[in-house]
Amino acid sequence: MLPQRILMGPGPSDVSPEVLQAMAQPCIGHLDPEFVSFMDEVNTLLRKTFLTENAVTLPISAPGSAGMECAFVNLLEAGDKVVIAINGVFGMRMVENAKRCGAVPIALEFEWGTPVDPDKIESALKENPDTVALAFVHAETSTGVRSDAQALAALANKYNCLSIVDAVTSLGGIELRVDDWGIDAIYSGTQKCLSAPPGLSPVSFNAAAMHRVKKRKHDPQSWFLDLNLLTGYWGAGAKRAYHHTAPVNTLYALHAALTQLHSEGLENSWARHASNYAKLRDGLQQLGLEYVVDEEYRLPELNAIKVPEGVNEAGVRSHLLEQHNLEIGAGLGPMAGKIWRIGLMGSSCTERHVDLCLSALAEGIENNKS
Amino acid sequence: MLPQRILMGPGPSDVSPEVLQAMAQPCIGHLDPEFVSFMDEVNTLLRKTFLTENAVTLPISAPGSAGMECAFVNLLEAGDKVVIAINGVFGMRMVENAKRCGAVPIALEFEWGTPVDPDKIESALKENPDTVALAFVHAETSTGVRSDAQALAALANKYNCLSIVDAVTSLGGIELRVDDWGIDAIYSGTQKCLSAPPGLSPVSFNAAAMHRVKKRKHDPQSWFLDLNLLTGYWGAGAKRAYHHTAPVNTLYALHAALTQLHSEGLENSWARHASNYAKLRDGLQQLGLEYVVDEEYRLPELNAIKVPEGVNEAGVRSHLLEQHNLEIGAGLGPMAGKIWRIGLMGSSCTERHVDLCLSALAEGIENNKS
Repeated sequence: MLPQRILMGPGPSDVSPEVLQAMAQPCIGHLDPEFVSFMDEVNTLLRKTFLTENAVTLPISAPGSAGMECAFVNLLEAGDKVVIAINGVFGMRMVENAKRCGAVPIALEFEWGTPVDPDKIESALKENPDTVALAFVHAETSTGVRSDAQALAALANKYNCLSIVDAVTSLGGIELRVDDWGIDAIYSGTQKCLSAPPGLSPVSFNAAAMHRVKKRKHDPQSWFLDLNLLTGYWGAGAKRAYHHTAPVNTLYALHAALTQLHSEGLENSWARHASNYAKLRDGLQQLGLEYVVDEEYRLPELNAIKVPEGVNEAGVRSHLLEQHNLEIGAGLGPMAGKIWRIGLMGSSCTERHVDLCLSALAEGIENNKS
Repeated sequence: MLPQRILMGPGPSDVSPEVLQAMAQPCIGHLDPEFVSFMDEVNTLLRKTFLTENAVTLPISAPGSAGMECAFVNLLEAGDKVVIAINGVFGMRMVENAKRCGAVPIALEFEWGTPVDPDKIESALKENPDTVALAFVHAETSTGVRSDAQALAALANKYNCLSIVDAVTSLGGIELRVDDWGIDAIYSGTQKCLSAPPGLSPVSFNAAAMHRVKKRKHDPQSWFLDLNLLTGYWGAGAKRAYHHTAPVNTLYALHAALTQLHSEGLENSWARHASNYAKLRDGLQQLGLEYVVDEEYRLPELNAIKVPEGVNEAGVRSHLLEQHNLEIGAGLGPMAGKIWRIGLMGSSCTERHVDLCLSALAEGIENNKS
């Protein structure tokens, strides 16, 4: 039996008892007519969450990294130019994915902790009129920064290329409007602001993106992530074509988590994330702690905090985990050892979590000064 | 709330209440030190199940099809020759995977419902001494046939190529000895004879297979399934490198299911599958029903039965589902409409299941004669 933690790291977030119980329902056959209707319900709930009418809106049967790979392998072919904004770990991963597709990434780097600069993106798109796609991360989990997805998607439209948006940490936590913003392809995860267990990656592709998938010269390099096959399996209403075996129980959990989200209301969820962030921010300020990101660009759901001079970074995290069963995150890559990442995602975004985190953090820091 | 079914199709099989409850434990962080030890336990349990000492034995965070893709994208590079035995749907899928790697599949076809003929495989390997791998399905879920994995793996060794074995439906249900049989790469699923929910694919790669992965000219085309990265994440003991977010709760379920399996004993599980098969076979004979596969090559866990003349195939399945909440499977591909597939897998392999299936089937057939 593993210990019960309070999850305030970069994900997974706390999963509610209702969602856990939904997950523990008896498994049903993935081709059962009742399950097929259930799949339609999941897709409908996902459309409500992405704020899209896209027919191709479904959960990939694997975590968010597979959602990223799904977008890249379906939309890019060998030799295709793709402009990729890098301002953290997940932009770097996009470049890696593009390379493995044989595509030609034009990587634009931005200082970690700052958002993607639309002007620089526009220059790159202007210089490379044969660009097929612009890929960027809406909410960088590694730094806690929000980029302007609406402005960036508009640039992709202006320069006649597809937008690929990483919304792993944004979906459900901050404003995100797939159709209104003209986003072409987007993927997310379930274990962040949706507060379902990890293991699925909701994706959505609009007609322009699917047009590109359908007119590919070669099949996507992944069979498992081939959207032409996946849409046959998940396709609403029509007779399903067997593809793989969907992770039935994990889908039960996602269905329950999305139902909870929409029972609260999507915009109310965004507001809750904003208000608990404000409470956390004020408390952290009182502790003399500083954010990595300027206030304007901060993600309410992922708070990257500088470790004060003379404080043992890992010691504080261990203290929180061992004394309070409270998980917060470490830094990744160049930020390892220098920051903590405090998540306020989904079910982990409550006043109680904020209070607990602030008092435990104060104690942990006090106990880990050199 | 979905109806509670009795799962006697080609998978998923019934998941025990204990496994469902394990899955509903609170989610823990995938980098939590306690979870890292838990991952080691899962890998140890998987080694006991595959009967291997392979260091690289781990569950891929996606269903069995992704396990297949993992084997192909890691072991094959563009231009590599791979001999693939096709005697059902899953051999065909292997060819599809090989093509997407840019590999050159040498596909050998065998009549559906018959096993792979080692003599024909040997001829092909002899004719193609530059073959990199031999891929075949141990237990063809589409037809219910068992091929001689030991003999086929020995041929791969004899002709100095790697064996890639699909054990999705065999693991836990019939004899399978990865080390003793000299299998190089193998993948399975969780929702068949292991009776965990779908969503994971246990894989194992021996030193020869990993040598090939390490000396590749190019990175595998999949980032998500790249074994060099996955072993950094799952690597026993050492500090883990973050790769993706493991499906924590699904792993709880797998751990519990494997614990149940080894509490019974692996060989006892094989024996249970054999004895309940014998009971089912005798009962089906009494109903005048015929198997697709000759007795010698039958899988106890997957019974492919010919639909009698004048009986409405789909009508019988609907009757079973609607009147008894009992799922059996339909035929795939050329066998659609011609056969039923009755699963006796894992927790669905009990005397009670056999009795229920026989009586329901007798009634269903009686009600669906034209």
